[in-house]
Amino acid sequence: MVIDMTDVYFDNSATTKCLPEVAALMTHILCEDYGNPSSMHKKGVDSEKYVRYAKETIAKCMKVQEKEIIFTSGGTESDNIALIGGAYANYRSGRHIITTKIEHPAVLKTCAALEEQGFQVTYLPVDSQGILRLTDLEKAMTKNTIIVSIMHTNNEIGAVQPIEQAGELIKRLNPNTLFHVDAVQGFGKCRIYPRRMHIDLLSVSAHKIHGPKGMGFLYIGEKTKVRPILFGGGQQKGMRSGTENVPGIAGMAKAIEEIFVDFDAKVEYLYRIKERFIKGVSHIDGVRINGPAPRVGAPHIVSVSVQGVRSEVMLHALEDKGIYVSAGSACSSNRSSAASTTLRAIGLEKQYLDSTLRFSFSLFTTEAEIDYAIGCMGEIIPVLRRYQRG
Amino acid sequence: MVIDMTDVYFDNSATTKCLPEVAALMTHILCEDYGNPSSMHKKGVDSEKYVRYAKETIAKCMKVQEKEIIFTSGGTESDNIALIGGAYANYRSGRHIITTKIEHPAVLKTCAALEEQGFQVTYLPVDSQGILRLTDLEKAMTKNTIIVSIMHTNNEIGAVQPIEQAGELIKRLNPNTLFHVDAVQGFGKCRIYPRRMHIDLLSVSAHKIHGPKGMGFLYIGEKTKVRPILFGGGQQKGMRSGTENVPGIAGMAKAIEEIFVDFDAKVEYLYRIKERFIKGVSHIDGVRINGPAPRVGAPHIVSVSVQGVRSEVMLHALEDKGIYVSAGSACSSNRSSAASTTLRAIGLEKQYLDSTLRFSFSLFTTEAEIDYAIGCMGEIIPVLRRYQRG
Repeated sequence: MVIDMTDVYFDNSATTKCLPEVAALMTHILCEDYGNPSSMHKKGVDSEKYVRYAKETIAKCMKVQEKEIIFTSGGTESDNIALIGGAYANYRSGRHIITTKIEHPAVLKTCAALEEQGFQVTYLPVDSQGILRLTDLEKAMTKNTIIVSIMHTNNEIGAVQPIEQAGELIKRLNPNTLFHVDAVQGFGKCRIYPRRMHIDLLSVSAHKIHGPKGMGFLYIGEKTKVRPILFGGGQQKGMRSGTENVPGIAGMAKAIEEIFVDFDAKVEYLYRIKERFIKGVSHIDGVRINGPAPRVGAPHIVSVSVQGVRSEVMLHALEDKGIYVSAGSACSSNRSSAASTTLRAIGLEKQYLDSTLRFSFSLFTTEAEIDYAIGCMGEIIPVLRRYQRG
Repeated sequence: MVIDMTDVYFDNSATTKCLPEVAALMTHILCEDYGNPSSMHKKGVDSEKYVRYAKETIAKCMKVQEKEIIFTSGGTESDNIALIGGAYANYRSGRHIITTKIEHPAVLKTCAALEEQGFQVTYLPVDSQGILRLTDLEKAMTKNTIIVSIMHTNNEIGAVQPIEQAGELIKRLNPNTLFHVDAVQGFGKCRIYPRRMHIDLLSVSAHKIHGPKGMGFLYIGEKTKVRPILFGGGQQKGMRSGTENVPGIAGMAKAIEEIFVDFDAKVEYLYRIKERFIKGVSHIDGVRINGPAPRVGAPHIVSVSVQGVRSEVMLHALEDKGIYVSAGSACSSNRSSAASTTLRAIGLEKQYLDSTLRFSFSLFTTEAEIDYAIGCMGEIIPVLRRYQRG
């Protein structure tokens, strides 16, 4: 017997439900402590306290300095500041940038824009698990390499890169090369310490970790030279002009604070439901799991291919059961199920490229929801496979 | 007798209190309808409805098309997209930009950055009321002028520019020149119709009109060529990548919707309290009002100079009475009371440059608050003038 459920939200890598306490704090700031941090009077000073609280909270969880945190409008802006701002602040040292083939579009498209502006970009391949080979990185590094940008956790298959080893390698080969890490999917799921990992620039988005949309931050190591990409009132020491989004900043900090309470237990919970899900669906005929082994990859992402069933058909069949998943990555405005660069890069056979779904879990995900989804898939897949082959 | 009050917030040009109904809508979207508009499933489709509602609401109040609205992280980003994006999309037609000396830093600093990149910028003067002379604009226009950027309402003295006449003039002299208007202070206080006013690009910020911080929009006329400045997932037809800030977008739309209910009565109310304030403080010895006559300028901004009293001293004396005002503009991270470019541009005598405060009102402002402030100023100013001269 399959119990009927609604709102089984397995698309947490696209965006997450905001914590009620985050929304409550934001409402308080929006309607009561609404001052502009640049104002000299009490209401300005009061609102600046929230900005300071946020910097303290974020700096503490990554063991960095408060002054190394810049608030942005999200992961995309953070990636753009890191790459464009980093490239233009350092182009006198060289014009070569290294990244991977499986980055988020916020990195790939920004690199493409920089190529049009005269920079050279090397796109490194990954292995069948979606992991970068350090030997490839070593070979690509030159004395003209000014930035290496590697994502922490891939948004489609959950592959986690060897960030610390890459950081060591980069700094050994060229201490002047900036190391940028897009941690939009990894932050709050893995412990990330920029200093130990030799990271100069780290991008994070709030809405992937139960914080507000339109909010993110960029860690900029104190010695890292970056040029701003937005100009104006000179807020945030000139690095990011525009009135600070204080409700968003405080909301993000609150979400981060929550995550790091019993962090290991939370990650363990995610791994447990992930394993439960994988175990359950692996028994279904035609199903295969892509990417790294469950405990090697990120705790919240599972990429599932179903032989002979198109992603979109499967997605809507699950939707009819109240289960929400993603075909590839939702981080693109393109709603078509066009084959993703990540799935191509790991060498997924052509027949699976258009038959892959991403399931992404959160701390709100329950075992009952996992079991319900396994039940639904066991019911749906044989029918769809028969139908689509016919 | 002067009644004691707290939280007399007269700094609404810096930022405003968010409407409770706006915060409530945002909370609902953050915690319930939290889908990513790029997701193919129901939660994505549901969240996209809010984006559509926002576009409809905004397009309707300015009589433009929905597809001409792009959501941004605020006024600063809108100005940067308009200027940088407009300059790079059109540099083959010329490299000349015209603006005024009294623009917000989001325009002035962006123009300065463009100058470093090879563009030429003409900064037009204004008269003693802060108004641009159309003859100056006419003289400055060349066949290489690709953008003219004029703010609708000045943020320090409330001067309202002859936007429609400037638009006509620009298009008559060079139909290819883009007309950008920074309407951050003017939107929601004056009726602005881009088409009738020949505006190609219009910047608006939500937190100046009782909406959320970190949110704004840019009107881009359908035939206007602009290059994006942020690259990524291709959201908003590629013009502004990054997951849409749906709670912010809907919150802004809600705030705009509220403003345009009984709009004329609201503007009349603002003018009435502004006149009441001006009338009251004008009787105080040493006080002078800068900028245009009350009904000629914006309905919510009053620039007041007090002979012989430094802005900062006056600001904190009022703060002690629970009255919050600004020394110059709070839109800059620089909290010093350094003389503003606007006050210099209108030719304010040197003795007043450092003795000027901005009072900015909102629909939450009451007549009782106005009277209380007048009373406090009548009490404080003679004391401070004696003290500072001594």
